[in-house]
Amino acid sequence: MGVLAIDFGGTRTRTAWYNADLEQQARDETPSLVNQPAESVIRRIIETARRVVPSGAVIEAIGISAPGPLDSRTGIIRHAKTLPGWRNVPLASIISEALGAPAWMENDANLAALAEYHLGAGRGCDPAVYLTLSTGMGGGAVVGGRLFTGWSGLAIEPGHMRFTLADGSVRRLEELASGTAIGQRARERLAQASASSSLRDVPEITGQAVGQAALNGDPLALEVVREAGFWLGLGMVNLLHLLSPQVIIVGGSASLLGDLLFDPARTTIEAHVLDPAFIPPALIRPAALGDDVCLVGAAAFALQTL
Amino acid sequence: MGVLAIDFGGTRTRTAWYNADLEQQARDETPSLVNQPAESVIRRIIETARRVVPSGAVIEAIGISAPGPLDSRTGIIRHAKTLPGWRNVPLASIISEALGAPAWMENDANLAALAEYHLGAGRGCDPAVYLTLSTGMGGGAVVGGRLFTGWSGLAIEPGHMRFTLADGSVRRLEELASGTAIGQRARERLAQASASSSLRDVPEITGQAVGQAALNGDPLALEVVREAGFWLGLGMVNLLHLLSPQVIIVGGSASLLGDLLFDPARTTIEAHVLDPAFIPPALIRPAALGDDVCLVGAAAFALQTL
Repeated sequence: MGVLAIDFGGTRTRTAWYNADLEQQARDETPSLVNQPAESVIRRIIETARRVVPSGAVIEAIGISAPGPLDSRTGIIRHAKTLPGWRNVPLASIISEALGAPAWMENDANLAALAEYHLGAGRGCDPAVYLTLSTGMGGGAVVGGRLFTGWSGLAIEPGHMRFTLADGSVRRLEELASGTAIGQRARERLAQASASSSLRDVPEITGQAVGQAALNGDPLALEVVREAGFWLGLGMVNLLHLLSPQVIIVGGSASLLGDLLFDPARTTIEAHVLDPAFIPPALIRPAALGDDVCLVGAAAFALQTL
Repeated sequence: MGVLAIDFGGTRTRTAWYNADLEQQARDETPSLVNQPAESVIRRIIETARRVVPSGAVIEAIGISAPGPLDSRTGIIRHAKTLPGWRNVPLASIISEALGAPAWMENDANLAALAEYHLGAGRGCDPAVYLTLSTGMGGGAVVGGRLFTGWSGLAIEPGHMRFTLADGSVRRLEELASGTAIGQRARERLAQASASSSLRDVPEITGQAVGQAALNGDPLALEVVREAGFWLGLGMVNLLHLLSPQVIIVGGSASLLGDLLFDPARTTIEAHVLDPAFIPPALIRPAALGDDVCLVGAAAFALQTL
C-alpha cells in the first residue's frame, strides 16, 4: 500500500511512490514535451507513473501537482501559461481511470506549501505560508495542518496583491518583486541613469544576471534588489495582517538572493506592522526542500484528502 | 444553564444571557464611564452582568467583547485607544473570579464577524470576512465556522493593509477608506479646489457630513466617496487573493453609504482580480445585526471555546 505522486511541470514530469510516513520508495522522471499533443503528454505521464508503482502494489491514492490556475475540486486544468493549447483538460480523472485509483490535483505552489509544512522549513507552523519567487510569484498556505484554498479553491495568490505606483498605476506584487521584475527594473535603471554598472557588459539583463551582479556587490544591482525587497516586505506586512502566519517560507530562484532580498523586507515589516506581536521568531525562512518539493506535497495532499 | 455575554465598549457596556441556541433571554446596559478608575469601571461591568443571570442559574461560560489590541489567550487588554490608562489589565480573569465561571475575551470586530457568521449576513459562508468602517477600520474572519486569528491571535487587521501613494508615502487602508479618511480627504479637496460644494456651508467636515452630502448628490462629496470606494475595492482584491472569502460583510457607520461606496469597490475588484472565479455571488453585503452584534459574538465565542 502506498500513494503515487505526480509532479507535472512545464519542463519535466516527476513521479514517485511514497509510504504513509511520506518516505519516498521509488522515483522516476521524464521531459514533459508540452508542445506535443495533450494526448501524448498525458500518455507519457501515465507511463512514468506506472514505473514507480511496486509490482503487485495497491495504489491507495494519487496526488498530482500541475501548473495553475486549476480547479482542484474537479481536477480540471483550466488553462496555464506553460501549457500551450491546454484548456479545461480533466487531467485528474484521466489519470485516475488509467491507474485505477482516486486522484486529486492541486497547483504546484499550494503543494510546495504543504510539503514545506510537513517535511521542510515550516514544520509545525500554523499558519505556514509559502512564496515562490521566480518568473512570477506563486504561493500557498497551510492552516491547522491542512492546505487552505478559500471559498474559490484558488487561494492563496500573494503575487496578485495590488499596489499603486507614483504614476497612479495599479501593479501586482509579482510585477514588483519577482525575478522578472528585478530584471525589468534593472533594464529601466540602465536606460535612465548613467551610473556605471557591471551589468552594462551583460548581453541579456535577466533577473538572474541582476542577482549575480548584486551578489558581486554591483551598486545598481544592489539598489534594484533592495527595491524588490521593499515591495516584498510590504506584501509580507499584508500577509501578517490578514493571515498572521508563523512562518513565511521563500522558494524559487530569486530566493537565492537570501538576505540581500530579505533584509530590506524585514526592515519594511518592522516599520509598518501594527504590533511587533505579529512577528514570530524566524518569520522569513528559505525553502528547505529541493526538486522533489511538489512530489512530497502531492503525496501529502493525497494522504490528507484520503 | 446558559452563557453570559458582556460587550464592554468605550461608551456603553451591554450584558445579556443566552441559551445554547444563541437566543437572548435577558439584557441590560449601562454607561462605561471609562474616565473613572479601572476598578470602578470593572465593578460596574460585573454588577451589570449579574443583573441578567437568572436567579439560581449556573453560568456555563462568559464571553467578553472588548476594544483591542488584546491578548485573547490570556484575557489581557494590552492597551486601547478608547480606554485611557488601561495597560495590561487581566479583565477576563477578574470577571471569571467574580462570577465563578470560565471567561474568554476577544476584540469587538472579531466577535462581530463570528456573530454575522452565526446569525447575520454571513450565515454558512466559508470563509466569512467582516469589515467595520467608522473612525478606523477593524475586521475579523471566520474560517471553517471558527474565529480565525492566526499565529499571533491578533488577525485579521484589514485596516492595516499597506498601500503607497503618488508621493511615495506608505498608508494604511484605514487612512484611505474609513469614515475618518473620507472627512479628511474632503477637507483637503475643499482647501485645494474652488469647486462649489454644499460642504462649504458645513461647520465641521466629518465623514458623516461628507456621507450625507454624497447621499444628497453633492459632486465633491461623491468624488471623495468614490475614491474611498476605489481603495476599499483594492483592499478587497487583496482579501480575495489571500483569504478568498465567500462573503465580505461591511458594518460601521460608513457602511450606511451603501452602493455609493460599494459600487466603485466592485468596479475595482472586477478590474483587478486574477480570475472571476474568486468572486462569489453577493460578495459584499451590509451587516445584518444591530447594536447587539458583539453580544451575540461574545456568546457564540464562549460556546465555541467551551
